[in-house]
Amino acid sequence: MTSHHLQPLRDLMPMPAIAEAAEGRLAIDGDFSIGCVAHSDELLQRALARFRRRLFAATGIPMKRGLAAAGEKATLMIRCGGPAEAVLSIDTDESYRLRIEASGAELSAPTPIGVIRGLETLLQLVAMDDRGFFVPGARIDDRPRFAWRGLLLDVVRHWLPKADVLRVLDGMAAVKLNVLHLHLSDDQGFRVECRAYPKLHELGSDGDYFTHDDIRELIAFAHDRGIRIVPEFDMPGHATAWFVGYPQLASSPGPYEIERRTGISEPSFDPTREEVYAFIDGFVAEMASLFPDECYHFGGDEVRPKRWQESATVQAFMRERGFATIPDLQAHFSERVAGIVEKRGKTVIGWDEVLHGHLPRSVIVQAWQQYEPLVAAVKSGYRAILSHGWYLDMCLHADYHYGIDPFTGPGGETLSEAEKENILGGEACLWGEWVSTENLDIRLWPRLAAVAERLWSPGHLSNASDMYRRLEIAERRLHDLGMQQRTAHERMLRRTCGSRQVLRALHALASVVEPLKGYERHKWRRYGDAVALNRLVDAVAPESAFVTRVAHAVDAAIATHFAAHHMKWLHERLAEVYEATDGLEMQLGQHPLLSECGPLVKPLRDLLRVALRRMMPLGPLLPEGVPSADEVEAALERAAQPQAELLIPLVGPIRKLLDALASRRK
Amino acid sequence: MTSHHLQPLRDLMPMPAIAEAAEGRLAIDGDFSIGCVAHSDELLQRALARFRRRLFAATGIPMKRGLAAAGEKATLMIRCGGPAEAVLSIDTDESYRLRIEASGAELSAPTPIGVIRGLETLLQLVAMDDRGFFVPGARIDDRPRFAWRGLLLDVVRHWLPKADVLRVLDGMAAVKLNVLHLHLSDDQGFRVECRAYPKLHELGSDGDYFTHDDIRELIAFAHDRGIRIVPEFDMPGHATAWFVGYPQLASSPGPYEIERRTGISEPSFDPTREEVYAFIDGFVAEMASLFPDECYHFGGDEVRPKRWQESATVQAFMRERGFATIPDLQAHFSERVAGIVEKRGKTVIGWDEVLHGHLPRSVIVQAWQQYEPLVAAVKSGYRAILSHGWYLDMCLHADYHYGIDPFTGPGGETLSEAEKENILGGEACLWGEWVSTENLDIRLWPRLAAVAERLWSPGHLSNASDMYRRLEIAERRLHDLGMQQRTAHERMLRRTCGSRQVLRALHALASVVEPLKGYERHKWRRYGDAVALNRLVDAVAPESAFVTRVAHAVDAAIATHFAAHHMKWLHERLAEVYEATDGLEMQLGQHPLLSECGPLVKPLRDLLRVALRRMMPLGPLLPEGVPSADEVEAALERAAQPQAELLIPLVGPIRKLLDALASRRK
Repeated sequence: MTSHHLQPLRDLMPMPAIAEAAEGRLAIDGDFSIGCVAHSDELLQRALARFRRRLFAATGIPMKRGLAAAGEKATLMIRCGGPAEAVLSIDTDESYRLRIEASGAELSAPTPIGVIRGLETLLQLVAMDDRGFFVPGARIDDRPRFAWRGLLLDVVRHWLPKADVLRVLDGMAAVKLNVLHLHLSDDQGFRVECRAYPKLHELGSDGDYFTHDDIRELIAFAHDRGIRIVPEFDMPGHATAWFVGYPQLASSPGPYEIERRTGISEPSFDPTREEVYAFIDGFVAEMASLFPDECYHFGGDEVRPKRWQESATVQAFMRERGFATIPDLQAHFSERVAGIVEKRGKTVIGWDEVLHGHLPRSVIVQAWQQYEPLVAAVKSGYRAILSHGWYLDMCLHADYHYGIDPFTGPGGETLSEAEKENILGGEACLWGEWVSTENLDIRLWPRLAAVAERLWSPGHLSNASDMYRRLEIAERRLHDLGMQQRTAHERMLRRTCGSRQVLRALHALASVVEPLKGYERHKWRRYGDAVALNRLVDAVAPESAFVTRVAHAVDAAIATHFAAHHMKWLHERLAEVYEATDGLEMQLGQHPLLSECGPLVKPLRDLLRVALRRMMPLGPLLPEGVPSADEVEAALERAAQPQAELLIPLVGPIRKLLDALASRRK
Repeated sequence: MTSHHLQPLRDLMPMPAIAEAAEGRLAIDGDFSIGCVAHSDELLQRALARFRRRLFAATGIPMKRGLAAAGEKATLMIRCGGPAEAVLSIDTDESYRLRIEASGAELSAPTPIGVIRGLETLLQLVAMDDRGFFVPGARIDDRPRFAWRGLLLDVVRHWLPKADVLRVLDGMAAVKLNVLHLHLSDDQGFRVECRAYPKLHELGSDGDYFTHDDIRELIAFAHDRGIRIVPEFDMPGHATAWFVGYPQLASSPGPYEIERRTGISEPSFDPTREEVYAFIDGFVAEMASLFPDECYHFGGDEVRPKRWQESATVQAFMRERGFATIPDLQAHFSERVAGIVEKRGKTVIGWDEVLHGHLPRSVIVQAWQQYEPLVAAVKSGYRAILSHGWYLDMCLHADYHYGIDPFTGPGGETLSEAEKENILGGEACLWGEWVSTENLDIRLWPRLAAVAERLWSPGHLSNASDMYRRLEIAERRLHDLGMQQRTAHERMLRRTCGSRQVLRALHALASVVEPLKGYERHKWRRYGDAVALNRLVDAVAPESAFVTRVAHAVDAAIATHFAAHHMKWLHERLAEVYEATDGLEMQLGQHPLLSECGPLVKPLRDLLRVALRRMMPLGPLLPEGVPSADEVEAALERAAQPQAELLIPLVGPIRKLLDALASRRK
């Protein structure tokens, strides 16, 4: 057993709770067989069929169908304690135990969901040595740190068809996430067929919505992968699309139209009239039966006070009930709707704005604005989910997301064990303003895998550099599984230029830029459903893998007092981009989707130029010699200016490198 | 209107019957709308929805849903003459007329199938200039040259799941093919659920078969794209899988097992017993209703005489009936089965072996062994389909397939107009011995597009070099449509080595090798369903795009008396491969799936070495000077030896170049 054979264990993501190397090497060949002892149900059978297909994809070796007969020795023995629940919950046991030795592997788990988690681990262990495909000897005991490990998909701002959601579910299962939170209604659309009130989807969706059959298919597909689907119907704000068909639900008279622009609209549900609650009751009755999950998310975020303040009826209602503030009024609405939902046997989830003295303690609070609401919630006895810090649409870096911990937040909060128990876990959120069916995977992968590891793996795992190493491997696995981040990037990039001449240079540019962070893009353009997401900013990765590697090399160079091999590697990489982008500015000018990016090229190349000159003065490429400190500073500052909603993140590591070089000389 | 704007018309594939440039440029932007006058049915509506999605994919611009109201001006007006037939046939009208000018486009066709063909052409015309996306002004009048433009998929030797077939159908529609011939039974498997005789699929398939629902889904999906599905159930030979469940059908006693190896097996149907024909009658009754197409393929190829010769019953039957030869006996069987099939209102198709004096004139003959049976068939009044020359599994080159014409064959046959009328068209065939769900697309694309053009476009189109230019564009379009030839190649290549170190060098090697042609691979290994198709030979393209470009550059160099820019380009490309493969032989030795390829590396590099030395003697790379004629010949001969079932097709163009260089000096 060489150290080479242990590598697959070091490459796992998410990392198991306990994963130890053991003697032996289990060959994966055409004799591979699967046996199943104790319990086996149809869900487990389907999981094993998928496993067999993926083992074939990993090796190209035709695998035997069917299971080994009882009593027969199989390469992989599955020992499952009992059936899967009809509906998964936060109490579902996902633990598993995997033992691999030369003679065979055994995967045991109390539930088929645990088996499914273990099969993902096993697939990640498949490797090749000079004898062929194998999995290394191992003793793995694994269970998730948090019961709630979710992803929010916003299918409203840009419609995401069923095929996209199915693909995302496959990717989620590969990184052991277990909750898909579907944001199904908002100002910009209503995305589920509603039989009780058909004008909701008929008039509120432009025809882009999930039918009941679609939803049932998504739920079955997710359930098969150990993933729950939690629906969100946001109210009382973010609700314009409801009012297109049913203006009587709003606190101000209609007519209403689907909101075509992004941003927060003012229309809100009318919290004063019983007819509104009756409508909600009928609606919840239908959705509570369509979505079997125990949880129902009722939104509650970003209620604009204006329409309630302007309405004489609402104002009279507030006076009558003694509500001093708009939040008091919202709390009344929350309480009523929570009652309606709970009547159907469901648990309510709301965004952190719903926290209020009158909020029933049964509600789960989802903290998004800050970490503090999470603390406030659990200290008040609510259960809570963290999303603050995990907004993937903000295009932040994986290490930032990885550094967020539900138990400590950014400030290192100290919580009691009881309070910690109320923290169910967290959810990454991908809001849809800049996400379309085309760039969905570019925005999700691989960063989502870093959040998934934070929620599954032991909290002490905190080495960002090792996370990045494994994230690169995870990204490749996700690509092989069918995720589209690479294919979509390549296709969208090619489409922006419509020609091959500029494509190589454009790839070089695309590899060193990133979209603006947070919600800065809104300052550049008024986005909405008629704005095409087909520009460079929409095609590039939120985090440049190239820049990440450069940043690590800079750290290594500084740590080694500018060891020659690090400096040489850095010089070569930067010189490649410098050379590849020669003449690009003028070429971009000829492409209508890229001309806005022309102004990026000179600051980028000036930045590379000062770095290259500084690293290798009087080198063959740039004979001008060492740049002055003023020249360097000017180049850094110019390159730090966004253009075309894009940033040049190379500025950071290059500044770090040049600063270090400068202080060395002093 | 610049010549730049006419390029899309020159890039079409298959080329329309008539395509002329016209004034104007029609912008494709967010205002694009579709109107439909005269007829519109649901098939047409679905076609327009797919068109809209693909126009979005081509531009990234959100397209308006729904149709323009009657009387309203739309960017694209569809004028369809009538509904689609419930079942398509060789008489289906596929013609269309497309007019594009600055103010709008009009697509008219007698049937929705014609509209579908025209929409594919329109999508191929989308391009980008400095103002944005557009289609060029054009007058296109198009109709297919042949009514039968098919592809045979063998889902028996290696199972191809439904998803693969659906994807192939999408690709077929993109190149205007209209018949998918499914080879559904053979010695190695029986791939359709049969309710009348369930042991056919239960015992004959290892669980890999299409259910009735699968078949209905495939047929509906194909019909929506103007594609017919013709089933083939091969008999009396190639039928072992039938006999696993029903040994009484065979002429020799069982028991039988699914044949695990490739090759032609001896078991055959018993042509002497009425019970066998009664069984076939029950079977055909079910399949004739499951498959609505007018045609039913009953096989008839490669009947091994041995079992019939050895059977006393069969011999007695022959004597009794006065059949002098085994072909006479097969003709009797053919006649009986044809009668059974025709009773169900179907037209029978058979492979060319069925041609015999007693074969009913209603049978369509599919010529595969030679061109001659096609001539013989049409001269005898049979209708016929050509497949000889279009066996894609033989890994031959696109220009070879492109050079085959159903009217002339390889020998320039002269047929009367009436005889030509009996030639319905042709079918490319992809037999499955070396085709799996993984490399299917590598084996199909882009070469199938060349056959598709031969069958659709005017016969005078014969410029192979322009075909290759357009084939490269077609390949990219097919990739964007979702075909997997690139993705699969990349993934399979990566899997052979399991490491990144060797990957760049391996890509260089993979770009200059091709699988053995024809059925040579059978001499190297006994193939069958337990042999993994996961080696380099399975991952590489049948035709190296790199070598094709080198061959063209060699021709250009010779034609221009070794113009410097051609020679420089050639030198650079060959030097790149030479440098990239340095040290590869030893590296390959460490990878179990690649070690067999090690012996390829030295002959390849020796070949490159003599070519480079000959092209640039005393150059910086190889200072040894000009190689002797003997050295050159030895290198060429060594490189022409196959290794690991792979060829180095660079030998051809390099020999051509070096010969030309040598004769210049003389």
